Amino acid sequence: MKPTLLVTNDDGYRSKGIISLIQAARKFGNVVVVAPNNSKSGQSHAITVKDFLRLTKVSEEDGLVVYRSSGTPVDCVKLALQELKIKPDIILSGINHGINSSISVHYSGTMGAAKEGCMSGYPSVGFSLDNFTADADFTNTIELAQKIIPEVLEKGLPKWVCLNINIPDVKNLAGAKVCRQAHGMWKEEFDKRKDPHGQNYFWLTGAYELLETSAQDTDEWALRNGYASIVPTTVDTTAYHFLDDIADWKI
Amino acid sequence: MKPTLLVTNDDGYRSKGIISLIQAARKFGNVVVVAPNNSKSGQSHAITVKDFLRLTKVSEEDGLVVYRSSGTPVDCVKLALQELKIKPDIILSGINHGINSSISVHYSGTMGAAKEGCMSGYPSVGFSLDNFTADADFTNTIELAQKIIPEVLEKGLPKWVCLNINIPDVKNLAGAKVCRQAHGMWKEEFDKRKDPHGQNYFWLTGAYELLETSAQDTDEWALRNGYASIVPTTVDTTAYHFLDDIADWKI
Repeated sequence: MKPTLLVTNDDGYRSKGIISLIQAARKFGNVVVVAPNNSKSGQSHAITVKDFLRLTKVSEEDGLVVYRSSGTPVDCVKLALQELKIKPDIILSGINHGINSSISVHYSGTMGAAKEGCMSGYPSVGFSLDNFTADADFTNTIELAQKIIPEVLEKGLPKWVCLNINIPDVKNLAGAKVCRQAHGMWKEEFDKRKDPHGQNYFWLTGAYELLETSAQDTDEWALRNGYASIVPTTVDTTAYHFLDDIADWKI
Repeated sequence: MKPTLLVTNDDGYRSKGIISLIQAARKFGNVVVVAPNNSKSGQSHAITVKDFLRLTKVSEEDGLVVYRSSGTPVDCVKLALQELKIKPDIILSGINHGINSSISVHYSGTMGAAKEGCMSGYPSVGFSLDNFTADADFTNTIELAQKIIPEVLEKGLPKWVCLNINIPDVKNLAGAKVCRQAHGMWKEEFDKRKDPHGQNYFWLTGAYELLETSAQDTDEWALRNGYASIVPTTVDTTAYHFLDDIADWKI
């Protein structure tokens, strides 16, 4: 029987990134898409609890069914697994228009969906390209995805581990490197404006700062040197190395 | 100089939980509150990128300033640090009305704020009580917070580690245990309804299933046995144990 590949993203079901990922996925089996109606960037692992969700079938053809939903990326995974009863062999999220390396894994709706797939017991992979534009060139990412997907279908992934794959926006990819999440932080500056009624409002803007510029085993190093980065990402966020220290506290 | 304690939450600045946390925090220094206008439950680590933010001072008295914002819990932390230029000695999030143990750490806006504080370089702690009601009894949690806060103020926390503290809704707390995040999953069932126009809509409902019922070193075990759970939580989500295995893949 052909594998079933569940595809979602955070840019919406019509984005070029998800259409590219569907193209990569169809080589390997039957594809079911459940993706947000519109962009849900920065939605992280958010779920919709105070509102209801819609789920609409958009199209159906041989080997491909597409649904769209009003929910977040994580809601889409939940709807696919629990309402549509899809039993995927793999869950693919992306291809995101924009990078999700280093600590951006925490803000990313793309990786929220991949982590949700992982927490639900399915091998899950998120893909992100370092290009925000609507017509970004996903050629390299499609090629890489077509190497990653069969490996994951064959070997699976360990429990509670998914993959965070980021691709630099370069003509010729130097290759792909398995790495760890770089330590860095976002330095925000709020763009403060006055509305026509004289009240302040704020737009979030920011620049990423890498805090370990010499380390060569990080995703940021890989990306800055023309490699795709593959970070195995755990949903068990226990800081095991600190368990013993804190046990001495007076609580 | 007195310490500065930054307080936020995901239930909104008027909730009983945050008022309880403010009460606990004021014993130790000057408190600045930046919290959402209203409930932002399930917002995880979401940030507002497609809309602007508002920030309004609600009140100011000796040792306590309160701001409210239209943003998510993570937005509130960013506004406090970057726009208000607060330099907190500690960031406290909660007390959440509802539990955030095990994998719920991923959905939690309370823990989103604590993780954001941690990623910004500040010792950060999230508190959650296993009671969803608006008038929950936070007495035990206030007492525990008043033990935790001075420990963290004195000893700090390691880089990239924050604390996820959950409290069972019991009259007499058995104590507090340092533990790891339990492996479990949410078994969702969508409550499917028809609107007056005949269209389907879905409410997310679910029950948590613990996948390791005999382990005694988890937060779920602690909570089920009347203890508060303290899980040191890392924002470095690299699955280090899988780095070597995946290096053999044909990519």
